[in-house]
Amino acid sequence: MKINGKHYQSIWETNSEVDSISIIDQRFLPYKFFVTELSTFDDFCFAIKEMLVRGAPLIGIVAAYGCYFAIKNALTNDLDKELQIAAKKLLSTRPTAINIKFAVERVITEIGKLTNVEAKIEKSLEIARKLRSEDIEICRNLGQHGVGIIKEIYEKKGSTVNVLTHCNAGWLATVDYGTATAPIYFARDAGIPLHVWIDETRPRNQGAKLTAFELLHENIPHTLIVDNAGGLLMQKGMVDLVIVGTDRTSLNGDVANKVGTYLKALAAYDNNIPFYVAVPSSSIDFDIEDGLHNIPIEERDEKEVKYIEGLAGDEIANVLICPKETPALNYAFDVTPARLVTGLITERGVCRPNKESILNLFPENRK
Amino acid sequence: MKINGKHYQSIWETNSEVDSISIIDQRFLPYKFFVTELSTFDDFCFAIKEMLVRGAPLIGIVAAYGCYFAIKNALTNDLDKELQIAAKKLLSTRPTAINIKFAVERVITEIGKLTNVEAKIEKSLEIARKLRSEDIEICRNLGQHGVGIIKEIYEKKGSTVNVLTHCNAGWLATVDYGTATAPIYFARDAGIPLHVWIDETRPRNQGAKLTAFELLHENIPHTLIVDNAGGLLMQKGMVDLVIVGTDRTSLNGDVANKVGTYLKALAAYDNNIPFYVAVPSSSIDFDIEDGLHNIPIEERDEKEVKYIEGLAGDEIANVLICPKETPALNYAFDVTPARLVTGLITERGVCRPNKESILNLFPENRK
Repeated sequence: MKINGKHYQSIWETNSEVDSISIIDQRFLPYKFFVTELSTFDDFCFAIKEMLVRGAPLIGIVAAYGCYFAIKNALTNDLDKELQIAAKKLLSTRPTAINIKFAVERVITEIGKLTNVEAKIEKSLEIARKLRSEDIEICRNLGQHGVGIIKEIYEKKGSTVNVLTHCNAGWLATVDYGTATAPIYFARDAGIPLHVWIDETRPRNQGAKLTAFELLHENIPHTLIVDNAGGLLMQKGMVDLVIVGTDRTSLNGDVANKVGTYLKALAAYDNNIPFYVAVPSSSIDFDIEDGLHNIPIEERDEKEVKYIEGLAGDEIANVLICPKETPALNYAFDVTPARLVTGLITERGVCRPNKESILNLFPENRK
Repeated sequence: MKINGKHYQSIWETNSEVDSISIIDQRFLPYKFFVTELSTFDDFCFAIKEMLVRGAPLIGIVAAYGCYFAIKNALTNDLDKELQIAAKKLLSTRPTAINIKFAVERVITEIGKLTNVEAKIEKSLEIARKLRSEDIEICRNLGQHGVGIIKEIYEKKGSTVNVLTHCNAGWLATVDYGTATAPIYFARDAGIPLHVWIDETRPRNQGAKLTAFELLHENIPHTLIVDNAGGLLMQKGMVDLVIVGTDRTSLNGDVANKVGTYLKALAAYDNNIPFYVAVPSSSIDFDIEDGLHNIPIEERDEKEVKYIEGLAGDEIANVLICPKETPALNYAFDVTPARLVTGLITERGVCRPNKESILNLFPENRK
């Protein structure tokens, strides 16, 4: 997608030797635009843990490239063992998103089938590349399937469709297009008049920072609101549709996503507004049948609640927003029960949030 | 209530001559604690307009004292006329606050009955004092009636009661005790172990700034959370009770309060958690039977959404949290439908949120 008119993706190989991977350092967006190169395994762990990159699909791809750098630069020839150690470190960076697990396990399985050291290294790079191109394709498919929902509303309403989204499930969270934003970009391209309500998304403000940045540079009309405002806008008929992303969706259709998603789902349900979740199948946890009780919720540093980052003059500053002695609690995600979800937009089509509908689209996961 | 161990109220007469009125300058809380003396009529207008004082009950009392200073220092002997001019100025400071109107009209009516200049001046001081002591008494009564709800939960649960509150309906918004916080202080005094979840309350962060400050200085265990987190905490069984204040409650029990209250009410309802509203009868609008459709919602400057105030080092700073080009929308309140409200805590007792129950407690408002 575009930044200042120039096309970017969120991750790319710096050069043909692949001696480093380039990413957009998202910590400084929207204020400053930096591209950073990752060239050691520790760089990759740092980039995920410190959120230079974030967004479930993107961190899966970064983890896969991390595996490549881990075994490429390994000090021993027991690459399977080296990979096990690397996998453990990668998995400890962010606990909620399943994509790291998915990516790392894919590398482990494929590498395990090979015996030659060079072949293993090559294979790991091949997998990372494949995950990256698959992600682009998946997001494109999410857009193609999701645009129908927006189109239908537009045809019924006949005027601008107001979409509310929470957090950033945009192209910066993937490689390109985004998950929740893909249908929006496809609708724009189809000539449907759109306006997007962007939830600020405290504590890290990914909506205010990243989604606002994306839509601004893509010229999609949008308005920033505080997380508290969405319910009121729905009551007032100012929201036609909610589309969010997900960090992990269980087989029964429960949706783990950025904290606050559940509150918006409740409000959408209370006001008869369709609530859709854009779910690449890599975010579906086919092993968990009850997401509400079994998806782990990451707890992060209380500093993210007590301090807010913003621009003071030309400098990025952290300001304390409460008494310095005040304790804070910072759960990063919540789980929206399937009963509040209208549908899941997957790369294979839109389905109902339940086991049968999900498995109908992904029968290879039937046990 | 206490600040650094010393007892304060939010407004008091500086000395027995009443040549000035002391207030806590709330603009700098929680970072800096300043007491300011108001000694001219213009000081009072400035204090309300620039939000040195805020909170509907408190600004009504400040306005009443303002009337006293307006006629005490009047240059003519036509005090009724002087008061009319003063009233107009006071009403223009915060045009939406009904409490200013209520206070000012009370002074005008009472003063109009008297002829003697000295008696008029004395009467205006008497009314301001009466409003102030009435407010303390009302909040005390809210505490006495509300504590029963907390006690009942404690007796059933047998361990710490977790109360969630939104915004600041504390003593800084009144003279003492607060509205939503009064039952909390009374429960603490009754030896009930308590913990309070404080919603940050974007955009102006009255929870993070003021409620956190109050509870910290009163040694009530509390934890700050982002507005997005309450639903998750309720799902996890970490909230036993919600108590909020209200800016206006209609006769059918619909509750206008700081934006985001509706989302917490939905989550409480979804998780079978009691949701109570502390309502002094001065906040009940007996003329509106359908609050959801008829209570006007104030729209404020988008800057409150785009910028956040906090402490950077030792300085209070405003930081921009989104691209500077991003438009924002800032509705200050929302309306929680009565069907989501468990009960109203009034100064005459707890009632159900419906016309009949409200009028049973306040029969003088039957038409």
